[in-house]
Amino acid sequence: MSLREDAEIIIQDSIKAVLPDEAVGRALKDRTFPGKVVLVSIGKAGWQMAKAAYDVMGDRIEDGIVVTKYDHVKGPIGNFELVEAGHPVPDENSYLGTQKAIDLVSGLTADDTVLFLISGGGSALFEKPLIPADDLDALTKELLGSGAAITEMNTIRKRMSAVKGGKFAKLCEPAQVYAIVLSDIIGDPLDMIASGPAYPDSSTCAQAHAIVRKYKLTLTDQMKELLDQETPKELTNVETVINGSVRELCEAAAASAKKLGYEPVMLTDSLDCDAKEAGSFLAAIARSHQNDGKSLAFLAGGETVVSLKKFNDGVKRSGGRNQEIALSAGLGICSCTDTAIFSIGSDGTDGPTDAAGGYVDNTTILPDGMEPADGRLTNDEASLYLCENNEYPALKRTGGLIFTGATGTNVNDVSVILIKR
Amino acid sequence: MSLREDAEIIIQDSIKAVLPDEAVGRALKDRTFPGKVVLVSIGKAGWQMAKAAYDVMGDRIEDGIVVTKYDHVKGPIGNFELVEAGHPVPDENSYLGTQKAIDLVSGLTADDTVLFLISGGGSALFEKPLIPADDLDALTKELLGSGAAITEMNTIRKRMSAVKGGKFAKLCEPAQVYAIVLSDIIGDPLDMIASGPAYPDSSTCAQAHAIVRKYKLTLTDQMKELLDQETPKELTNVETVINGSVRELCEAAAASAKKLGYEPVMLTDSLDCDAKEAGSFLAAIARSHQNDGKSLAFLAGGETVVSLKKFNDGVKRSGGRNQEIALSAGLGICSCTDTAIFSIGSDGTDGPTDAAGGYVDNTTILPDGMEPADGRLTNDEASLYLCENNEYPALKRTGGLIFTGATGTNVNDVSVILIKR
Repeated sequence: MSLREDAEIIIQDSIKAVLPDEAVGRALKDRTFPGKVVLVSIGKAGWQMAKAAYDVMGDRIEDGIVVTKYDHVKGPIGNFELVEAGHPVPDENSYLGTQKAIDLVSGLTADDTVLFLISGGGSALFEKPLIPADDLDALTKELLGSGAAITEMNTIRKRMSAVKGGKFAKLCEPAQVYAIVLSDIIGDPLDMIASGPAYPDSSTCAQAHAIVRKYKLTLTDQMKELLDQETPKELTNVETVINGSVRELCEAAAASAKKLGYEPVMLTDSLDCDAKEAGSFLAAIARSHQNDGKSLAFLAGGETVVSLKKFNDGVKRSGGRNQEIALSAGLGICSCTDTAIFSIGSDGTDGPTDAAGGYVDNTTILPDGMEPADGRLTNDEASLYLCENNEYPALKRTGGLIFTGATGTNVNDVSVILIKR
Repeated sequence: MSLREDAEIIIQDSIKAVLPDEAVGRALKDRTFPGKVVLVSIGKAGWQMAKAAYDVMGDRIEDGIVVTKYDHVKGPIGNFELVEAGHPVPDENSYLGTQKAIDLVSGLTADDTVLFLISGGGSALFEKPLIPADDLDALTKELLGSGAAITEMNTIRKRMSAVKGGKFAKLCEPAQVYAIVLSDIIGDPLDMIASGPAYPDSSTCAQAHAIVRKYKLTLTDQMKELLDQETPKELTNVETVINGSVRELCEAAAASAKKLGYEPVMLTDSLDCDAKEAGSFLAAIARSHQNDGKSLAFLAGGETVVSLKKFNDGVKRSGGRNQEIALSAGLGICSCTDTAIFSIGSDGTDGPTDAAGGYVDNTTILPDGMEPADGRLTNDEASLYLCENNEYPALKRTGGLIFTGATGTNVNDVSVILIKR
């Protein structure tokens, strides 16, 4: 099998493992619930997760509600209520759907379970403000303009919400909450994903007051009152499983590589540096393990950053962070043998392109100073494409674009080095 | 022992392993030579390497010559001739010293050995041009202005030299050449270090002509004639050992960490990306291995690049690539426990500072949004220092500067992640 064929298998296996259906299926496998079960599924993958739960449990779920983004409902699911709402800015439907969820979990007993499915986008889609919407808008704008850190903003906003910062779990009491999380934030900070409706909040009223003083925020009397109401510091009725995250994406890639005969080495699942430099670092790793005498697969998950240059010349350029990692890495592995580096976004769309990412091997780019003979990219050409954030046409020319189509999941990216011996 | 104490031991052990004395000592250990032995030692570490060889072999070395940089001779060595010459631009003393070396190796027999010690800077210090010095200067300037790649420049220059590109080894024939190399170039390209006086040259006359055409170089008749003289493609009288290089620096760091109870993981010995981004990548690796349940030491060697900003405000700023790696990494490990990252230049001088590098641990920088309580660097402060390429005062404040003094070797840098469990 070629390196490229190995890569395709690893890509398929790893994405499959983090599809909402798989993630929910794994979390519900061999799981029994004593009393009544109701379902609340929020976020951009809300419909898929609810569908997967229904496929496993069917009518065992007595009632359910899905709050997802517009155009994200793909058909009815049992008797579930399906609400489409605003994202990234919440709208009336967000508030309506959230209220319906609160109604659904009211009056349950300690034997009952709220199956709470959470995916990215939940912060906007799942919200019930405790203050008038206009006041919340004004406060949000002031916070954004103040230069406050995201954690500081959340400390304030959780206090203005009826569901954020663990409060939804309190509303479910005395029922048990079984939360299944599909994480789109590096490091899986459960208090950040969808603003943590079922996760204890570590921020304090004192911190909230300090932030108000620091940024001289203008508060209404109602806001001031809410500032003094402490968020839940402990939740005894919640069990959380993160069953789709970049770590699982990496682990699935590792398992797939291992089946193909590579020894997997997990580098990181929280990569957040510059994409081009990440590619260079990965190439440096590849170069130094050429003579280890065994097939190796190094894995790095995360979400890198593209340093985008501005051009006003009207030329159309396209690329994405995964394509940039690949092309940059390609420049560094010209001297290797049987070595490939590829990188994909698990959602199947890398940057504003229709490709999921990019693939290069040691033959993709010619060594520095070598003239092109067979249409291969010269070192200079590849450097120029990179420099213009224009990786798509470069990889199109080398056959290095990876296409998966939209996958229906989003747990960030994974980059893989394959050294075949 | 503290993380910092562990770090100091690893730093000492790794630098010691790549000192010229150690490198030469290892290469000469248990080594016997049948006939006469003469020594030629070139480069910035020329004196130290010659001294080390003399300390091992004494009068067994019949005669010797050292060509090193001005102010680099530290005293007499036996009966060796010690020449100080121009670097980075060759001067009359370079040519004189080189001619003396050529004289020394002339008339030897096949039983005799030229002990050839090579360190960085040899390209300038060891040179005998086959064309008038003025012509060589003009050609070099034209090449530099043409945009030619370094490999292209070398292809031309090797043909204009009596010693580069394997030609010195030819001049030693029929004697054997035992070359000991202290490598200051990532990847140890033997044809590049000191322009490869004892290494077969892979460039061809045809390539040389193509380069002349490509850049429309102006050549004298003498240069044109030299362009047609092929460089040695094979050398049967040379044995080369690379005994001081960044790989050995990393391996020594790994061995030292292992003795201290860490499981070493070699990432790379050819890191060449941006220093700040390298720090971020290392921090991402550290974060993802917090719960592996064992003490780990990740090692990355190489030479990173600093993206230096220009300020015209008269404020004095100072730092270096290793300090930048450390401070950048510090920003990414605030959430870790018992984790340190440090980075050093093996020459003991990082950038234009008197520090060898920098050290941070998970307590060095406060997490984002936290207020300073005990003089610790806030996240914002550390980011600002980094942004201004001004890591020295930041690390001075945190006690994170590493001092070794000038070490007398230069085999690039090593960065280490320590996770203690």
